[in-house]
Amino acid sequence: MEIKIMKNILDRNQNKANEVRGMLAGKNVIMVNIISSPGAGKTTLLERTCERFGTEFRLGVVEGDVTTDRDAQRLKKYGIPIVVINTEGGCHLDSYSISKVLNFFDLDNLDMLFVENVGNLICPTQFDLGETFKLAVVSTTEGDDKPAKYPMLFREAKAVILNKIDLLPYTNFSLENFRSDLFNLNPGIPLFELSCTGSDGLDSWYKWILEQISNH
Amino acid sequence: MEIKIMKNILDRNQNKANEVRGMLAGKNVIMVNIISSPGAGKTTLLERTCERFGTEFRLGVVEGDVTTDRDAQRLKKYGIPIVVINTEGGCHLDSYSISKVLNFFDLDNLDMLFVENVGNLICPTQFDLGETFKLAVVSTTEGDDKPAKYPMLFREAKAVILNKIDLLPYTNFSLENFRSDLFNLNPGIPLFELSCTGSDGLDSWYKWILEQISNH
Repeated sequence: MEIKIMKNILDRNQNKANEVRGMLAGKNVIMVNIISSPGAGKTTLLERTCERFGTEFRLGVVEGDVTTDRDAQRLKKYGIPIVVINTEGGCHLDSYSISKVLNFFDLDNLDMLFVENVGNLICPTQFDLGETFKLAVVSTTEGDDKPAKYPMLFREAKAVILNKIDLLPYTNFSLENFRSDLFNLNPGIPLFELSCTGSDGLDSWYKWILEQISNH
Repeated sequence: MEIKIMKNILDRNQNKANEVRGMLAGKNVIMVNIISSPGAGKTTLLERTCERFGTEFRLGVVEGDVTTDRDAQRLKKYGIPIVVINTEGGCHLDSYSISKVLNFFDLDNLDMLFVENVGNLICPTQFDLGETFKLAVVSTTEGDDKPAKYPMLFREAKAVILNKIDLLPYTNFSLENFRSDLFNLNPGIPLFELSCTGSDGLDSWYKWILEQISNH
């Protein structure tokens, strides 16, 4: 019974996601669904990325949060359009909520729309938003076992950010184990080892984002 | 429609949780439902706690994971009974799964049963397992905004562990902001600021656990 209901919910979500994907393709907008644990650094990644590209390209952000608009407040200074979705206890965004907030953006004048999903490694992976691709963010301080323990996200993502690389010396995180588990799940996936609060490794990330926009 | 179904699921979960709670009370077993983000240090906290109390008291562990038994493998060396629940994509444990695995424990000879829930700050909070109390674990590297952004857990928990206190100097975590947000939600809640990989602050945690067992 519950499985059937869950299937219905997922089917309906998928239909709406397909609609969103088609619409964004028509407008030539890239939508990036950013998924991570709470506190892995999604908002700080967006701060760096908006700093770098906020004037060069037309960016937008959807901030998904259980409650509060704290993340949106942090991004306000970049002068880009931001919409907050408070899920009021919900553990993920879905394609219906995305579909509704797309009206707030001028899609004819947008290159890339970042969606910061709710901090959660599990549920957001199960709900297609109609994104162009998923981006997984994980940080060294969470331990090297995340790809093995939460394989769905790392299998589906188009790229992975390993954040807080500056804290590596203070942890027991094994880069070797992490890479091995990740590439077993998703051979050849682009992996960016960087620090969003410093500058380590950010250039490769910027270069990759530039390629995504240029080749779209 | 979906709201009604969710209500039915939660009601059924609550009934079974009440049954579990009654049964554990009859056996004088304390059940601790440990909830945190992925990688906050739940398993390492259990390692330290089993080291300290594994021979003095009769402990047991239920390991909830989406997939793998990696956490259980880390605890095997303490010689205590451990049962793994793989949720196969599920984002939280529920009282039905707990009810089933209780059969694997000798409840007449158990003082405290730790349940390591799936790494997730949202969904596990919504499903009562029949626990004696919830324990929230959060780490300094996740940022100081977690109580404000995920208030449900911090409102319901009986105590909070702030782990990775040794990494504080390398982060922009404000203890003042964290404590202020936490105590606004839950005035007077016991807060243990500690490092599970070092020894900072662990004594206060051990003392508190001892009190829970002694006063039960």
